[in-house]
Amino acid sequence: MQGNSVVVTAYDWVPSFAQGHVRDLRVRWALNEAETPYETRLIDHQQKTEAEHLARQPFAQVPVIDLDGGSMFESGAIVWTIAEASDNLLPKDAAGRRKALTWCFAALNTLEPVVARLAEVEFFIDDAEVKEKLRPRAIKAVETRLAQLQAALGEAEYLTGEFSAPDILMATVLRDLGHCDVLSKFPALSAYLERCLARPAFAKALDEQVKPFAENAHRYEQAA
Amino acid sequence: MQGNSVVVTAYDWVPSFAQGHVRDLRVRWALNEAETPYETRLIDHQQKTEAEHLARQPFAQVPVIDLDGGSMFESGAIVWTIAEASDNLLPKDAAGRRKALTWCFAALNTLEPVVARLAEVEFFIDDAEVKEKLRPRAIKAVETRLAQLQAALGEAEYLTGEFSAPDILMATVLRDLGHCDVLSKFPALSAYLERCLARPAFAKALDEQVKPFAENAHRYEQAA
Ligand SMILES: N[C@@H](CCC(=O)N[C@@H](CS)C(=O)NCC(=O)O)C(=O)O
Ligand SMILES: N[C@@H](CCC(=O)N[C@@H](CS)C(=O)NCC(=O)O)C(=O)O
Repeated sequence: MQGNSVVVTAYDWVPSFAQGHVRDLRVRWALNEAETPYETRLIDHQQKTEAEHLARQPFAQVPVIDLDGGSMFESGAIVWTIAEASDNLLPKDAAGRRKALTWCFAALNTLEPVVARLAEVEFFIDDAEVKEKLRPRAIKAVETRLAQLQAALGEAEYLTGEFSAPDILMATVLRDLGHCDVLSKFPALSAYLERCLARPAFAKALDEQVKPFAENAHRYEQAA
Repeated sequence: MQGNSVVVTAYDWVPSFAQGHVRDLRVRWALNEAETPYETRLIDHQQKTEAEHLARQPFAQVPVIDLDGGSMFESGAIVWTIAEASDNLLPKDAAGRRKALTWCFAALNTLEPVVARLAEVEFFIDDAEVKEKLRPRAIKAVETRLAQLQAALGEAEYLTGEFSAPDILMATVLRDLGHCDVLSKFPALSAYLERCLARPAFAKALDEQVKPFAENAHRYEQAA
């Protein structure tokens, strides 16, 4: 991967509840861990639906990455690709590498759906009565998976032993539970999350994501 | 990958609504495409929660695969691993391979969550009033993604041009919409799905999944 050809597409601004939670964070974090310098292409919420962006991200989302003369999307696929090209984001042996791939999919296909579901109930269902009816089921689904994840982690510091690509995905998924206190029931997982988020590459990524939001806020506040 | 060491863990029986839709189908399909012979280890719904299974699949689910002396879980990770070891389930060039990885994650992290969400509303929300309130939003989320997917597919026969690993994941996700008629609004996607499901390796996988269910049904019917 050529450092000077890496460009991450992200938003120039998002509403405050989403700031620091947009999925380009995962990609920035992985690039920072891999010590790969990158540039950004910032788009707005009009551009995301335009043909030029859809040709690169057909679901009108971010992130997209340009690298090695091509582009790809899906944060999971991008983080895996960065990890494969790095020398510090994947175990070196075949078995460890398979374990890492397993946990990447577990983060995005087993954990994220229940975490996103709870957020949907909390933030996107307006009807208070419906919300009350759905919440217990949504919380229970999250708790079940967190208990299983905590048991699977056991005494390990990270999912594959050493810090690796799936920890980036899992930590950003777990961090999205910050709006509620469900994680506090799982102290070993909370400690795992803290361990991941204490990494300098994460702090740098977070900073890099939110910096343009502050710079562009005035344009959106005028528009609103 | 050594054919004689490949073992897929699946259920010995599931209720009729789930028959032919359990996620080991994806793994069997990929193995059949790769012409890799496999054996099965069939477990029941008691065993799935026991320590022996949890050590291999911490979320008490199937599938699990044993291969090359180790085991891994997550259907997406397994299908990708089978594809990497095969000579007919991935494009040969690096750009094509990244495109395939992108579409694997798109199937499981962008499409599957909205498809599963609609199924949850239809089948797992008992309160009729809540169901009616949630259905329009759930259907709209599916339709948005299907329209984008259809546009992305364009005139192509398969996601990466030739049939490859992500088609196995995407087709099994789309097929889970069979309970409703939403796919019929997207003729090119319906044709894509038919094209995928017409493959002999799929028919064989389906047959291999459901065969034990018939053989074991009497034990569960007695128990009920
Ligand atoms: N599965 C995709 C999901 C990407 C995604 O959900 N992106 C959000 C931001 S975090 C987005 O761009 N949503 C469109 C919008 O904001 O309207 C991935 O992991 O890359
Ligand atoms: N993300 C997992 C999901 C696996 C999954 O949902 N398995 C279901 C069957 S399709 C299961 O075993 N559920 C537990 C149960 O039936 O209680 C994967 O793709 O492998």
